[in-house]
Amino acid sequence: MEDEKINISNIYIENDLIKAIGYLDDFKADRIIDGSNYLTMPGFINSHTHVAMSHFRNYGNDTDLMTWLNDYIFPAEEKLNEDIVYNASLLSFVEMIKSGTTSFADMYFFEEETIKALEKSKLRAQIARGLTYPDENFLKLKENIDLFKKYNNKDDKIFIALGPHAIYTNTINYLKEISKVAKEFNMPIHIHLSETRVENDECIKKYGKTPTEIFDECGIFDQKTIAAHGVYLTDNDLSILKEKNVSVVHNPSSNLKLSSGILDVTRLLDYGINVCLGTDSAASNNKQSMLKEIEICALLSKLKDASNLKAFDVLKMATINGAKALGIDKLTGTLKAGKKADLIMINTNNVNHFPTDELIASVCYSTYERDIEYVFVDGDLLLDKGKLTYLDEDEILKKAKSIHKELL
Amino acid sequence: MEDEKINISNIYIENDLIKAIGYLDDFKADRIIDGSNYLTMPGFINSHTHVAMSHFRNYGNDTDLMTWLNDYIFPAEEKLNEDIVYNASLLSFVEMIKSGTTSFADMYFFEEETIKALEKSKLRAQIARGLTYPDENFLKLKENIDLFKKYNNKDDKIFIALGPHAIYTNTINYLKEISKVAKEFNMPIHIHLSETRVENDECIKKYGKTPTEIFDECGIFDQKTIAAHGVYLTDNDLSILKEKNVSVVHNPSSNLKLSSGILDVTRLLDYGINVCLGTDSAASNNKQSMLKEIEICALLSKLKDASNLKAFDVLKMATINGAKALGIDKLTGTLKAGKKADLIMINTNNVNHFPTDELIASVCYSTYERDIEYVFVDGDLLLDKGKLTYLDEDEILKKAKSIHKELL
Repeated sequence: MEDEKINISNIYIENDLIKAIGYLDDFKADRIIDGSNYLTMPGFINSHTHVAMSHFRNYGNDTDLMTWLNDYIFPAEEKLNEDIVYNASLLSFVEMIKSGTTSFADMYFFEEETIKALEKSKLRAQIARGLTYPDENFLKLKENIDLFKKYNNKDDKIFIALGPHAIYTNTINYLKEISKVAKEFNMPIHIHLSETRVENDECIKKYGKTPTEIFDECGIFDQKTIAAHGVYLTDNDLSILKEKNVSVVHNPSSNLKLSSGILDVTRLLDYGINVCLGTDSAASNNKQSMLKEIEICALLSKLKDASNLKAFDVLKMATINGAKALGIDKLTGTLKAGKKADLIMINTNNVNHFPTDELIASVCYSTYERDIEYVFVDGDLLLDKGKLTYLDEDEILKKAKSIHKELL
Repeated sequence: MEDEKINISNIYIENDLIKAIGYLDDFKADRIIDGSNYLTMPGFINSHTHVAMSHFRNYGNDTDLMTWLNDYIFPAEEKLNEDIVYNASLLSFVEMIKSGTTSFADMYFFEEETIKALEKSKLRAQIARGLTYPDENFLKLKENIDLFKKYNNKDDKIFIALGPHAIYTNTINYLKEISKVAKEFNMPIHIHLSETRVENDECIKKYGKTPTEIFDECGIFDQKTIAAHGVYLTDNDLSILKEKNVSVVHNPSSNLKLSSGILDVTRLLDYGINVCLGTDSAASNNKQSMLKEIEICALLSKLKDASNLKAFDVLKMATINGAKALGIDKLTGTLKAGKKADLIMINTNNVNHFPTDELIASVCYSTYERDIEYVFVDGDLLLDKGKLTYLDEDEILKKAKSIHKELL
């Protein structure tokens, strides 16, 4: 997919890898899937979410970000526990697999439970412990470091980042401490950045500087960083983000629903910034489908100029750009021999894909989640002709219903 | 659903009608569908589309409305014929039924072919022959009148409107002639109105008045009118539309994709205008799913204020408001004993609907098209546990592929 051309060829998977694309004479397959009526492409990479928030779906609807956080989400999160986080993560994984996501970047807490669920789901992920001040004796930070020591790079599937949540939930000293730890362990970072105008205004009022300038001065951007949202960035902010190779995650649904605004993707791409896509949590979206974000991103980008952001560029945001953001582009994000077998097969033999002469645009504008019938991660088939293979949706739902009453 | 309350009760269907909602002692059912895990609601009413444009999906992507029409669509439409329109209509009907649409308003040509396909599909519709000048000897207008005489009100399922396409494809005299005919036969009207800024600017330059003012002066609004788009309306326009009881159709995807703009739905609702929802054609959307329009409408409305436009109001736009626009609100648009059995059943026993305590919001933000498993129109089951009953998707697709090469 790297050259915008669609090829008709065989894809050979051996263990966790794409062995070859093309034709192999002596390959003995355990199983052959007929891909004639399918578009096969890299799996989606959801570069910003909080998978354990699925029990909060529809909680605090119709409120803006700060009201939603302060009056609904933060108080509700006080009641979370290990069991709920484990179950909530599985709820999200079912939805993500059924809509073609193969990797994601997460920031939350009780992340060891999310990792347990992740291993069960067979997905690939970068996990960050959300770091907010006050953090007495750096307990959250220590927890984040422990996660790194215990899980980072496990089986090429789990990667641990530091998660300084946002400018408004941190102090300068705390950010500097996080930055020191990040350098010591060479850890990547995942933050929220300039999501709302209020966030920016308050930061400038308090520090006389933008959130980007503060993060940069604290050394955060010296490590590989994923910055979610970035709706309100100055030209100077963009220069900093480009220079420090920070990836920005566009979350169009969440930014609309929480009345945060619309990111000007074309402007960031023109700066040469790596822009990727994310769903944000089920509580502010309220789905976990990258296909929805692809569609809304493509449509919104046309608002200023219909020639903005072609379908292929949106698909890159949802695949290889995400892989670059998570630092896993050597492993995944494109279909190439030697890379991990993380791929999805979209059934195009249906009215919504007719005519089939512009399939890349179709994925942006015409594919339904139900059309994604096969999902491979690391060579494992997670969705087989639309059926989950490792996760049991009914069982996960049943558990969810039984523990939900503890929560809200 | 009229009072925003969800009730748990039985729905009894007899022939084409909802016989009762509640409990009937002596009802002998031929078939019982267990609705325990489903949300049952009125089917969606797509108040503006061109169903026969599905062969043009992805044609002229990445262009604005006027370029798209003049350089792509209008020339391609010259090559349309009866066979293609019949097949293209069926392609759309498959997609519409699979996403819960039960009624729609259409404007196009070769409409007798669309009506043939409509009767096969068992959907309900208002059909308008697109009227554009030059129309030598009023042949298009006569065709529209003939359709009215032949089909209007057939089986309570087909309704014929006049379709003066738009201000920029008509003349004052032609609009006056259409208006005369509309009064003579008491026909409703379906138009495009103030879709783009360019349309408005050129109209004001030419006539010194807005499109709304011109249509009104020509007497168009004296008949029941559906006005698609309405993105650029002055306060005076809104007063006219309210006074004349004109319904405005919001087509959020199409307006974004063709760089037309975003309709301020809340502003129109505050004027007391009946606002409904449409997909526009598969060529500018590129789906025919009302669920997508519901979702994007809800999200976009939050841009100015997160408390704007609650989920229930969006669902009204997609159901009862559409029924009012089409003049079929006595027949359909709500679930009520005595009304036509036009309803859909959404499977909520899945992770994306968890938790299920805010199901009305879920339909806006969390339902996937695959969750719509049963679709009834006029008491006929058009989609049965996700399977089409009257239409054969494979056969329609096969025919589409065989005739598409004649076209582009």
